[in-house]
Amino acid sequence: MLDGKKVSEELLIDIKKDISKLYYKLGLSVILVGDKKDSIFYVNSLKKYCERLNIKFFLKQFNKNISLNDLIKEIDILNNDDSIHGILIQSPLPLSLKKNEKEIFNSICPKKDIDGVNIYNAGKLFLNNDIQFIPCTALGCLELLDYYDINVEGLNVVVLGASNVIGLPLSILLLQRGATVTICHIKTKDVKSHTINADLLISCCGVAKLVENDWIKQDAIIIDVGINFLDNKLVGDVNFDSVKDKCKYITPVPGGVGPMTITMLFKQLII
Amino acid sequence: MLDGKKVSEELLIDIKKDISKLYYKLGLSVILVGDKKDSIFYVNSLKKYCERLNIKFFLKQFNKNISLNDLIKEIDILNNDDSIHGILIQSPLPLSLKKNEKEIFNSICPKKDIDGVNIYNAGKLFLNNDIQFIPCTALGCLELLDYYDINVEGLNVVVLGASNVIGLPLSILLLQRGATVTICHIKTKDVKSHTINADLLISCCGVAKLVENDWIKQDAIIIDVGINFLDNKLVGDVNFDSVKDKCKYITPVPGGVGPMTITMLFKQLII
Repeated sequence: MLDGKKVSEELLIDIKKDISKLYYKLGLSVILVGDKKDSIFYVNSLKKYCERLNIKFFLKQFNKNISLNDLIKEIDILNNDDSIHGILIQSPLPLSLKKNEKEIFNSICPKKDIDGVNIYNAGKLFLNNDIQFIPCTALGCLELLDYYDINVEGLNVVVLGASNVIGLPLSILLLQRGATVTICHIKTKDVKSHTINADLLISCCGVAKLVENDWIKQDAIIIDVGINFLDNKLVGDVNFDSVKDKCKYITPVPGGVGPMTITMLFKQLII
Repeated sequence: MLDGKKVSEELLIDIKKDISKLYYKLGLSVILVGDKKDSIFYVNSLKKYCERLNIKFFLKQFNKNISLNDLIKEIDILNNDDSIHGILIQSPLPLSLKKNEKEIFNSICPKKDIDGVNIYNAGKLFLNNDIQFIPCTALGCLELLDYYDINVEGLNVVVLGASNVIGLPLSILLLQRGATVTICHIKTKDVKSHTINADLLISCCGVAKLVENDWIKQDAIIIDVGINFLDNKLVGDVNFDSVKDKCKYITPVPGGVGPMTITMLFKQLII
C-alpha cells in the first residue's frame, strides 16, 4: 500500500520544523467563490492545517455573482500584500466564472502561485527550466513515489486523464525522470490495450471504479488520483478489491493521493 | 508522400499575399553566434526567403566568445526596436553559451518569440491558453497533417524524442487534438513495442535510419523529423526504402518537414 496518509503525516512534521525556522509568520490566502458545501468543507480542513502548522490563514469568500473584474482586483490586493505568501483559488469556480478560469489563474502573481496554475509556472515546468511551483496533486504523486523509492526511469507509465492540473503536468514530470509516458483520455480508443502494458498506471480521469483486474498487468504499480462518490461512498478510479492482489503497489482512496495534495500545498508555501 | 516542399511552396504564396497587405515592412532578426558552416548556410537561406517575401532581414552575428550579459543586452536592443517583429536565435549556440540557452531564450520578448522558445509561450502552449507561438518544426508537422486532411483524433501516436523544441510541444498539440500520445526517448525500453502500435509515428530523435520496416504497423503514417548525415548523404530517422511500401504516408528527407519549418517561421512572423 502506498500510504499517503502516513507519508503526509511524516512530511508535515518536517514542514512544521521548516516553518518554525522562519523569522516571520507564513500567510496563506484561499479564495472561495460561492458556498458549495464540498468547497467549504475543504477550506475548513485547510484552515485546521494552518492552525496546526502556525500559518496565518486568510479566507476571502465572495458571492458567486462576483464579476471577473472585481475578483481579479481582489486577487491583486492579495498579490501586493506582503503578509500573504501563497494564494489558492478553490475549485470549482461557479459556472459564471468557469470560462474565465485561465484568466483568473494568470492573475495570481507567479511567486505566490503555490498551486502552479499560471502560465509562467506551467512554462517553467514544461521546459524543465528552474521549476518552482507544481500543481499540488501532481507533486504529491511524485513525492509518494519517492518515499517508497520507486524509480520511474525506463518504466512504461500510462496516465489516464490529460488535465492541466494533474494528468499533463504529472506526465511531463515523469518524462523528465526518464519514464516512457502514454497519455490516454476520453478520445482514446481501447484504453485497456494501453493500460495492460503499464508498469505504472496513474488514473486521474474521475470515473468511479473504471480500472478492473484485467486492465492491469501482474505487479503493476497503481496510483489512483480519482475521488468519486458512488452509493454515498468515496471511491477511486480503480476497483481496489478487483486489482489489489494483482498489483505490486496501490494507493487507497481515501488516504492515498488526497492527503499528499494538501501537504504539498504547504511544502510549496514555504518555497 | 507528405510533400513538405510542395505544401510549403503553396503556403508561402498565401504568406506573401498576407505580407503584401501590411502597411509596414516586416522585420526579422536572426542572431548568429559564431561561424559554424551549417548555421551560416541556414541563415543565408533565411535571408533569401526574406528577400522573396519582402521582409527586412537583420543579421546580428557575434563572436563565439561573446559573454552572456552582452548577448542578452543585444537581444534587448532588438526587443525594443519597433522595426523588428520577430527574433530567431540560430541553434546550436556555442558550447560556452549552451548552458545558458534557457536564459537566452527567455530574454526574447514573448511578442517577438516567433520560434516559441521562451517560458511564457511554452506555458500558453502547455495549458492550451491563448496559444500564440509554437516551435516552428512542431507547427510544421501539424500543418502538414492538416494539408493532407489527416485527423489525429483517436489515433495512437508515438513520438520518438522528447525535446523542448520538437517532441514535447508536438506531443502536447497532438493531445489537444484528441490523439493518444506515447512519448519515447533514450531511456525507453523496447521502443519497438511502442512503435509497432502507432497509427502515426513521429520520429525526432536524430538517429539515422533508426526506424525499420518491422518497427511499424501496416498503413502507419510516418513523419520523419530527423536530419542526419550518413555517408555524406542527408537521411532521416527512418529507413525510407525499408518502410515505404508498408506505410500509408511518409515525409521524405529532405523535402518533408524541413521546408515546413522555415515556412512556419514566416507564418508566425506575421502573427
